[in-house]
Amino acid sequence: MTGIPDAPGAPRRRGRPARTETGGGPGARERILTAARAEFAEHGYDKASIRGIARAAGVDPALVHHYFGPKEKIFAAAVEQAVAPAFSAPAAVTEGPPEGAGERLARFVLGVWEDPVTREPLLAIVRSAVANEIAAGVFRDLITSRVLVGVAAELGGPDAQLRAELAAAQLVGVAMLRHIIKIEPLASADIEQVVAMAAPAVQRHLMGTGAD
Amino acid sequence: MTGIPDAPGAPRRRGRPARTETGGGPGARERILTAARAEFAEHGYDKASIRGIARAAGVDPALVHHYFGPKEKIFAAAVEQAVAPAFSAPAAVTEGPPEGAGERLARFVLGVWEDPVTREPLLAIVRSAVANEIAAGVFRDLITSRVLVGVAAELGGPDAQLRAELAAAQLVGVAMLRHIIKIEPLASADIEQVVAMAAPAVQRHLMGTGAD
Repeated sequence: MTGIPDAPGAPRRRGRPARTETGGGPGARERILTAARAEFAEHGYDKASIRGIARAAGVDPALVHHYFGPKEKIFAAAVEQAVAPAFSAPAAVTEGPPEGAGERLARFVLGVWEDPVTREPLLAIVRSAVANEIAAGVFRDLITSRVLVGVAAELGGPDAQLRAELAAAQLVGVAMLRHIIKIEPLASADIEQVVAMAAPAVQRHLMGTGAD
Repeated sequence: MTGIPDAPGAPRRRGRPARTETGGGPGARERILTAARAEFAEHGYDKASIRGIARAAGVDPALVHHYFGPKEKIFAAAVEQAVAPAFSAPAAVTEGPPEGAGERLARFVLGVWEDPVTREPLLAIVRSAVANEIAAGVFRDLITSRVLVGVAAELGGPDAQLRAELAAAQLVGVAMLRHIIKIEPLASADIEQVVAMAAPAVQRHLMGTGAD
C-alpha cells in the first residue's frame, strides 16, 4: 500500500485488495502498530493473532500481512516503535562531561518510563518479552543492537558491553519495581530523588571499577 | 485435610469429600502448589483456573479450594513458596562485616536465580506478576513485608527502605537481563564476575551516599 494509491475504479490486481475494502489509507500502518501493541499486551505474544490485530485496527488481515509479514515481524516493528525513544541513550552518555554520564543516562532512561506516552508501549512490550521466548529474542536483539552496543562503544575499555549492561540492569530494575511491581516508597518517590540515588551506581558501571 | 485422616468407611461429613475420591493424601498440598505454579506460568494469572490446577495435581477442585480458598490465595501461597529462598536476604546483609554487605547480598540474591531449582518457581511468579495487576500486588506485598522491610531495618538511617529498594533494583535488573531477556554477554558471564560488578553498586545503596 505504498506509492501511488489505486485509482478509483481501477482494475483490481491479483493478491492486493483495493484500499477501500481493506481499511487501508493514510495512517493505516500506524493504526496497525498501535493495535498490535494492544493485542500483544492483552493476549500475550503466543495468543495474539493477525486476525485480532486487523480487527482492532479496522483493516483486512491481508493488509496487516502486506505491511509487516508474519507475527514475529509485526512484533519486531511494535518493539522498534516502543523502544525508539531509548535509541538516544548512547547520545545521553556522551553529550556532556564524563562525570555526569551516569546521571544523564539515569535521567534519560527513567524519563522514558516516567512519561505515560512512552511508558505504555514499553510496558506492553516488556510484558510480552517476559512471557515469551520469541518475543524476548526480538526485544533482546533490538536493545542490544540499537542501545547497548552504542553505549558500550562510547565507553570503551575492558568489559565495556558488560558494564553497559550492569548500568542498564540498575535502570531496568528501577523501572520494573517502580512502574510494574509498584513497590513503595519507590513507586511514589520524586523522580529527581530516584535519579539522584540511581546515578552514582550507573556512573560507577559506566566508568568501571575505581571511578568513585 | 489436616489433622486425623478419615477412617476407612467412616461416614462422610457434609462439604468435605473423602480423601480417596479427591486425590488428597500425603503431599497433596505440595502437589497442588507445584501444579498452581505451572498453571500460572503457562496461562498467566488471568486465565489460570482452579479446575486446571486440580487436573494437573490429580485432585478434585474442591480439595484445591479446601486447602487454599480462591485463586488469589492459591497464587499468594505459590508466591510465598517461590520467594521463600529470598527470605534470608536480611540475614545476608548482617551476617558479616558491613563493608561486605553489598557483596553478600548480591551473591545471595543472584545465587537464588542461578540455581534452576529456585529459579524456575521465581520465573513463573515474575511472569505472572509482570502480566497482571492482582498478581503484582500479591508479589509486591510479600517482597515488601518479608524481604525489603527486613533489609531496611538492618540498614537504618534516612531513606533506608528506598535504599534497600534501589539495591534490590540492581539485582532484579541483573536477574531480568541475565535470565529472562538473556542479553549477552551478561547472560553467559561467570557468576562471580557478575557478583563482583554488581556488589559495589549494591553496597553504595545499602550504606547510603558517600560510603565509597
